[in-house]
Amino acid sequence: MPPSNGLDTKKDFMDAFETIAGDILSELHQEPYALPESGIKWIKENLYYNIPGGKMNRGLSVPDTLECLVGQRELSKDERRRAVILGWCVEILQAFFLIADDIMDGSITRRGQPCWYKKDGVGMVAINDSFILESIIYKLLRKYFRQEKYYVDLLELFHEVTYQTELGQMLDLITAPEGQPNLSAFSMLKYKWIVKFKTAFYSFYLPVALAMHMAHITDPAAFKLAESILLPLGEYFQAQDDYLDCYGDPAVIGKIGTDIEDNKCGWIINQALERVSDEQRRVLEDNYARKDPACVARVKGVFNEVNMKQVFADYEEASYKQIKGLIASADSILVNPEVFERFLQKVYKRQK
Amino acid sequence: MPPSNGLDTKKDFMDAFETIAGDILSELHQEPYALPESGIKWIKENLYYNIPGGKMNRGLSVPDTLECLVGQRELSKDERRRAVILGWCVEILQAFFLIADDIMDGSITRRGQPCWYKKDGVGMVAINDSFILESIIYKLLRKYFRQEKYYVDLLELFHEVTYQTELGQMLDLITAPEGQPNLSAFSMLKYKWIVKFKTAFYSFYLPVALAMHMAHITDPAAFKLAESILLPLGEYFQAQDDYLDCYGDPAVIGKIGTDIEDNKCGWIINQALERVSDEQRRVLEDNYARKDPACVARVKGVFNEVNMKQVFADYEEASYKQIKGLIASADSILVNPEVFERFLQKVYKRQK
Repeated sequence: MPPSNGLDTKKDFMDAFETIAGDILSELHQEPYALPESGIKWIKENLYYNIPGGKMNRGLSVPDTLECLVGQRELSKDERRRAVILGWCVEILQAFFLIADDIMDGSITRRGQPCWYKKDGVGMVAINDSFILESIIYKLLRKYFRQEKYYVDLLELFHEVTYQTELGQMLDLITAPEGQPNLSAFSMLKYKWIVKFKTAFYSFYLPVALAMHMAHITDPAAFKLAESILLPLGEYFQAQDDYLDCYGDPAVIGKIGTDIEDNKCGWIINQALERVSDEQRRVLEDNYARKDPACVARVKGVFNEVNMKQVFADYEEASYKQIKGLIASADSILVNPEVFERFLQKVYKRQK
Repeated sequence: MPPSNGLDTKKDFMDAFETIAGDILSELHQEPYALPESGIKWIKENLYYNIPGGKMNRGLSVPDTLECLVGQRELSKDERRRAVILGWCVEILQAFFLIADDIMDGSITRRGQPCWYKKDGVGMVAINDSFILESIIYKLLRKYFRQEKYYVDLLELFHEVTYQTELGQMLDLITAPEGQPNLSAFSMLKYKWIVKFKTAFYSFYLPVALAMHMAHITDPAAFKLAESILLPLGEYFQAQDDYLDCYGDPAVIGKIGTDIEDNKCGWIINQALERVSDEQRRVLEDNYARKDPACVARVKGVFNEVNMKQVFADYEEASYKQIKGLIASADSILVNPEVFERFLQKVYKRQK
């Protein structure tokens, strides 16, 4: 996950959320909206329930990256404020996706509370609520960035990253339909495609690219460079996530993993499939994607037989070295490599 | 519904859909997407199943309005082609909303085929498919309009109209939750708000505003003028829709209305509520929003007692006169009033 900073920064970030919610709600009170009170109440609940409450690492990394990009000098108050707004736009984009993902996955809880669609009186209206969150991104961009030369670039960046994420989500959903295990649909190649599109673009590339626009970087080569480092980093991050789902300490990661039961096209199953005998493959085929704990245990048994803990440890070292190498050979005129280094240090060997 | 033109125009319009679908799919085949074949197949099905197949009046009205705006001369081939693309963007926006509306309303069929989410193997993945359609609007705008001075205006127009429609959909959903009749939540005021936001902006204002941008109209007063005529027209159009749901000929309108059963906050119930005695109101309260045909008959009985057919006929005449008056007093320098006249003639006294 992208780097975050100290406690003060987090408090500033949260305070800005109040401003944003206030902007949106007060606009809706007035003409030309004049939204009836029941609607105002509903939107307020939607905003407060769904947007804050995560780790906010993606959002916090926008001002953090901008700080790094402007170099020695401090950010002006206005620069910081607007970088924070962009950070919230990333968080709102994520909230939009998560509301829908939870419905599509049939999830029950999110961030320690019922999923929005599971709340009494919400139900499928949640779909439209997710749309509204997406629309709010563009309201904020218009309010705070309309006068900037890079305004269109921000709009196009959000459009493109949104599309990429949706494509990734689509391939994930059709590759691993709920309750219909078909391991032959899985492959490391497809896994990498899904992770890049579904996670890496919006979680790693987007916050940095936003900060780069704010820093008035315009050279397409700089954005290409950022992609070439941040997408592999995003892939490594997601592999960790998948590893921790199976092998992490539930007390540390804050949840009990269910990727095996849920037929997820994750890192471990794809790596294992490249290493199993025909007999072990049959065990996986017979037991993957079943809600029965005995089946899960049999799958984990095969994972142990092919040494997945060691395979992951080796992968982690190789990824670290690879990304270190990419950073070292990056043209530091285009982007300050410290930007990437900060992300890498946050991600390397994380336990949660 | 906005005006449509002859058969040739419809065929041209449909041909353009093939071009658009080809654009999107061939881009996904190539880098940087290189979407796996199963994904290409899925998107193709999404596009062809959900976008064409409607009456396409909204989409067709973009080139039709542009023709009217440029006056005497014919549209160039390139102008027509691009107006048609914008028309398809309106149709795609509608497809995005309809996929989600059908899930939220629990609908079974749409345009004579199962709703997308009801198709075998689709289910809730339909939510993400609706997102993808929305994203495709911005891919098309970028491809065909990026070099235009009014490109940002198109983006902002789609953002704003999308937001307005979502707000309308939200208020409609929370005002009339399925199976929880509460007539005291209804009012003509709320009805008008819902119709304006949920229907009038995207069905009437959007196609005209798009054509106005293509005609290089930039005066905000011209857009205000268009709104001031097209929003009342949209309200009148929706009142007709609601009237036909109850009193239209199913053989002509192509469906059997179920607004009474579905607890819809429609024109007739709201008008009736302003005219009923306490006793009649109790009949409505006890029988509205129930799936039982005897209940529906009792509701319709009250509608007849308060003469809703005549009330509507009077409303229709008054609306026609009002909109005629708005058109007559419009500043014809700002927008050719023929644009509005065409819409009005298509809508007035329509039977389907």
